Amino acid sequence: APAPFIRRLSNYHHLLLGMRQRQIQTVSSTTLAEILEYKPIQVRKDLQLAGLVGKPRTGFRVDEMEEAISRFLGWSLDTKAVLFGVGNLGSALLSYPWREYGLRFMAAFESAEERLNILINNIPVYHTSYFSTFAEEQDIDIGVIAVPVEEAQPVADLIVANGISGIWNFTTTHLKTSSGTTVEDALFTQSLAILTRRLIES
Amino acid sequence: APAPFIRRLSNYHHLLLGMRQRQIQTVSSTTLAEILEYKPIQVRKDLQLAGLVGKPRTGFRVDEMEEAISRFLGWSLDTKAVLFGVGNLGSALLSYPWREYGLRFMAAFESAEERLNILINNIPVYHTSYFSTFAEEQDIDIGVIAVPVEEAQPVADLIVANGISGIWNFTTTHLKTSSGTTVEDALFTQSLAILTRRLIES
Repeated sequence: APAPFIRRLSNYHHLLLGMRQRQIQTVSSTTLAEILEYKPIQVRKDLQLAGLVGKPRTGFRVDEMEEAISRFLGWSLDTKAVLFGVGNLGSALLSYPWREYGLRFMAAFESAEERLNILINNIPVYHTSYFSTFAEEQDIDIGVIAVPVEEAQPVADLIVANGISGIWNFTTTHLKTSSGTTVEDALFTQSLAILTRRLIES
Repeated sequence: APAPFIRRLSNYHHLLLGMRQRQIQTVSSTTLAEILEYKPIQVRKDLQLAGLVGKPRTGFRVDEMEEAISRFLGWSLDTKAVLFGVGNLGSALLSYPWREYGLRFMAAFESAEERLNILINNIPVYHTSYFSTFAEEQDIDIGVIAVPVEEAQPVADLIVANGISGIWNFTTTHLKTSSGTTVEDALFTQSLAILTRRLIES
């Protein structure tokens, strides 16, 4: 599926989570389009592609739509991840409620001695030199990088060398990897762009 | 400008930063379209709307395009922000290289006694009760929220009550605010969606 379509689905999912919190039970594709500033026809097409069918008047059930999108995005599966770097950002990531997205951190790896052999949110922190052994024993899907920028590329190389095909990069380094690897940069800047542009416009 | 357009511009900007790091000097709209999986016609339209004109054969200069997009997004201005919550995530945010985006943290606010009256990355941390006085003296554009979920809504109310119109929400709480406020949720999940979906597809 094309990346822009997947990104839009994740945006619908976020809205639906909020609606569920506020106990809203049904939603129309027009409402989703309005909030996200998408074209209504695009929302209808997206939902259809994700296998969703709305009812004439009432629209879609929020819980069903959320579940269908979760399934489509792989968030109802068990995805195993490891983290590299348990500084402030890494520690925050270990404490995030990822289970909603099927993501499970199996371990974290770090080179600073003072942060080794501790548990953060019940997740063990090991020395990076132990990673290869660990990766052989466990079936890891995603390597998450939250190390200082200058260590990001070597860590990415280590992840790839151990046969892990997904990299989630929280550093500002632009990683170079071989073609079989999917690298996704976690950007804070997309939502910042909306804020700063709106400030200009207002 | 419509939100999806602004988000696409921030994605071009991220690519351009990477190209500049790798000393690539020119880029075509087709290349941008290919990497981001957008339609080439959309990229051409976007760049035109941002006031950019490419040269027939050589395309666009990377530095010029980056600068034009920065200007459009308000990233060449000085945007003043305050942070609420200096836990792991908050501390990580204070250390992020925001100057590239024109963002300047003036102060952080916190209620935990042990984290008060310290400097993080040269940014002072004050008690939350001092915020109203601070906001009167300084012209703050954006309030960034990185407090525990249960404190997120009261902090949002405090930000709005002090006349700040931009909120950048790093919590999982769906905030309720009055209509004059722009709330942007910083989502890690859009890039996670790409990764987890790609894992299903591969």
